[in-house]
Amino acid sequence: MQRPKVVIIGGGFGGLNAAKSLKHADVDILLIDKTNYHLFQPLLYQVATAALSPGDIATPIRGVLRKQKNATVIMGEVVSIDKENKKVKLALGEEFEFDYLIIAAGSRHSYFGNEQWEKSAPGLKTIHDALKIRERVLLSFERAERFYDEMDVDQYLKFVIVGGGPTGVEIAGAIAEISKKTMLKDFRRIDTAKTEIILVEAGDRVLSSFGEDLSERAEKELTSLGVTIKLNDRVREITSDGVHLDDEFIKTPNVIWAAGNVAAPLLESLDTELDKNGRVMVEPDCSVKDNPNIFVIGDAAHNIDHKDKPLPGIAPVAIQQGKYVAKLIKNKTEVLHRKPFRYFDKGTMATIGRAKAIGRISRLKFSGFPAWLLWSFVHIMYLIDFRNRYMVMTEWMWYYISDKKEIRLITNKTDL
Amino acid sequence: MQRPKVVIIGGGFGGLNAAKSLKHADVDILLIDKTNYHLFQPLLYQVATAALSPGDIATPIRGVLRKQKNATVIMGEVVSIDKENKKVKLALGEEFEFDYLIIAAGSRHSYFGNEQWEKSAPGLKTIHDALKIRERVLLSFERAERFYDEMDVDQYLKFVIVGGGPTGVEIAGAIAEISKKTMLKDFRRIDTAKTEIILVEAGDRVLSSFGEDLSERAEKELTSLGVTIKLNDRVREITSDGVHLDDEFIKTPNVIWAAGNVAAPLLESLDTELDKNGRVMVEPDCSVKDNPNIFVIGDAAHNIDHKDKPLPGIAPVAIQQGKYVAKLIKNKTEVLHRKPFRYFDKGTMATIGRAKAIGRISRLKFSGFPAWLLWSFVHIMYLIDFRNRYMVMTEWMWYYISDKKEIRLITNKTDL
Repeated sequence: MQRPKVVIIGGGFGGLNAAKSLKHADVDILLIDKTNYHLFQPLLYQVATAALSPGDIATPIRGVLRKQKNATVIMGEVVSIDKENKKVKLALGEEFEFDYLIIAAGSRHSYFGNEQWEKSAPGLKTIHDALKIRERVLLSFERAERFYDEMDVDQYLKFVIVGGGPTGVEIAGAIAEISKKTMLKDFRRIDTAKTEIILVEAGDRVLSSFGEDLSERAEKELTSLGVTIKLNDRVREITSDGVHLDDEFIKTPNVIWAAGNVAAPLLESLDTELDKNGRVMVEPDCSVKDNPNIFVIGDAAHNIDHKDKPLPGIAPVAIQQGKYVAKLIKNKTEVLHRKPFRYFDKGTMATIGRAKAIGRISRLKFSGFPAWLLWSFVHIMYLIDFRNRYMVMTEWMWYYISDKKEIRLITNKTDL
Repeated sequence: MQRPKVVIIGGGFGGLNAAKSLKHADVDILLIDKTNYHLFQPLLYQVATAALSPGDIATPIRGVLRKQKNATVIMGEVVSIDKENKKVKLALGEEFEFDYLIIAAGSRHSYFGNEQWEKSAPGLKTIHDALKIRERVLLSFERAERFYDEMDVDQYLKFVIVGGGPTGVEIAGAIAEISKKTMLKDFRRIDTAKTEIILVEAGDRVLSSFGEDLSERAEKELTSLGVTIKLNDRVREITSDGVHLDDEFIKTPNVIWAAGNVAAPLLESLDTELDKNGRVMVEPDCSVKDNPNIFVIGDAAHNIDHKDKPLPGIAPVAIQQGKYVAKLIKNKTEVLHRKPFRYFDKGTMATIGRAKAIGRISRLKFSGFPAWLLWSFVHIMYLIDFRNRYMVMTEWMWYYISDKKEIRLITNKTDL
């Protein structure tokens, strides 16, 4: 008898953990990803803000699975799923059959129907995105220094971050730090202390997924770093000239999008119920309705758990779901005997700047330096392989001692 | 009286060393570079072959000169030089006046009149180039793995390197190592041991700038790594399908150009004698004929020294010339009192693979592990700042212990 074929779409936290948990299962795994690397997304904003190199937080997927002989990795984009014939189809036409399918295709940023904004306001999901933001921010300072005598360079020293969730807060804090501290002495003409960093949030507080006191603490920390926070304010239009808010136009080429996610468009081909963010409404065992051998996990899934809110789109949820579905497949658990997936919430954290963070473990809330130390420790521990841990720790130690962020490279061709 | 204005074009080894040597001079320095970073070019092939991150060998120029208050750095491209009015002009139109000008604009690879080959056979001069080569090589392996069952994938496992100088030899050795050793266990379908690496050299030996015995040694080492060396063979045509040699067509999308350099086209605007590689025929004091305050150094200069051959286009020459002209400027040395520039040759080295290198110090030649150790030591010592040294050493130690090259990232969008 042939071994069951398990196809996994996506090598992020969910997909990769599913693959690794199937190491000793009697199955053949085919993992398909659009990129050749697993990305430690929680630290992606540090690549965007010149603190880490891409290689520090990304690692080749086939390197991770090198010793797992039942796993094959291919690079390619899955464009549709055929539930009836149990096949996935790739962009270049090939099809692969499966007995089990794990869809861990993640999400992209959503512009709520204004996709034309993406060109002027890039989001942060891939290394490509991070390098684009890094170059844009650095080039803006270069332009300000170069054209200081000739024109009004204020626009080049303004940075608008849209969205007050963890990504928005982390980017705003990091840009404030590099512009007001790290790069201060590197420029002769411009006064980088005059940089304006504006964080725009439609709701009435930042980090709304945390408690109100932690939001307040984060707002205080951001303000002390020099970030202007605009709450209850909405983006009306973004062009290459700048951003229109409710009652204001901010002229700047630097708008970064950190608001809203939408699941991969591939999920539409599943022909099952999706929520308003394009996520699949999965069964309690993470499977697709009426298809017990097709699972959706991570950011691509709307999973209710025992509370009534969907689980958050964060790494621990995806990791636990990946391990959970791998176990169902390994044990060939019948639908009737499957216990619903339960998310074990170890807490959440967000960092605001060097030696500043906020966090929650169960009901315990904390902030400041201890929170930052714990944040650093947890993130290093979760990095996928020893080499990444070693390199990130090395970079952070360097940064902590020298207060310099050195990966400030503009590597693409520019029009300067 | 106003302080003399020194304009430096280029922040490579020559330009940056000139700027640093003018630290205590009573002048105002303006350093203009197309990029925002100083690049440690001797290790660029290690970025191209996934051993180092760009941030390990590149450092922001303004970071290096952060504490040197008499130096201003701007990012921009100088397109012409006006000797009479003592001005340089940038691509966007601004002009800057100078009292002294140091042209350290480097070189690009030359295709000997076949510039259309560049698209199919990228060269290796910038980080952008290195990342392009890295992605091309890695994507080729990904394609071979993905399409193994469907088509003849041999072409994806072939790599042709044109040019048997140090760059060509280093790239060939590194690709042989990653394909035949490092990545061997990462693939399930293809046999990476079947990779063919072909080094094409028009002359009758590789590394012709070294002694014949060292060339022979290098050829032996390359062969043992699995590299095929084709001597006395020339490239007739390169297309996206492959490369035509004298009597052979090699079908492959992987052609890397490491043959021939040409100086920056900017030099033509100097309206002075150039050699066949576009380099300025400079006076013994590195100045341009009849313009004692305009200097050309590094790869952009054809400087005869006391031998009859032009000085080689290597970092030590540029560094020494940068320091030499800075001293002339600092001391306001009159033309009649200038001693000609003398290159102090400390020796040369080339590496072929892990723990393999060849080198010469004065008349002493050496090879193998001791040469490699010395090579590693010298390169780390010459890296521009402490952080780079620390990171490169860290990466090399990791690689030496683990035998894995981990910066194997394809970060641009692909058509897979």
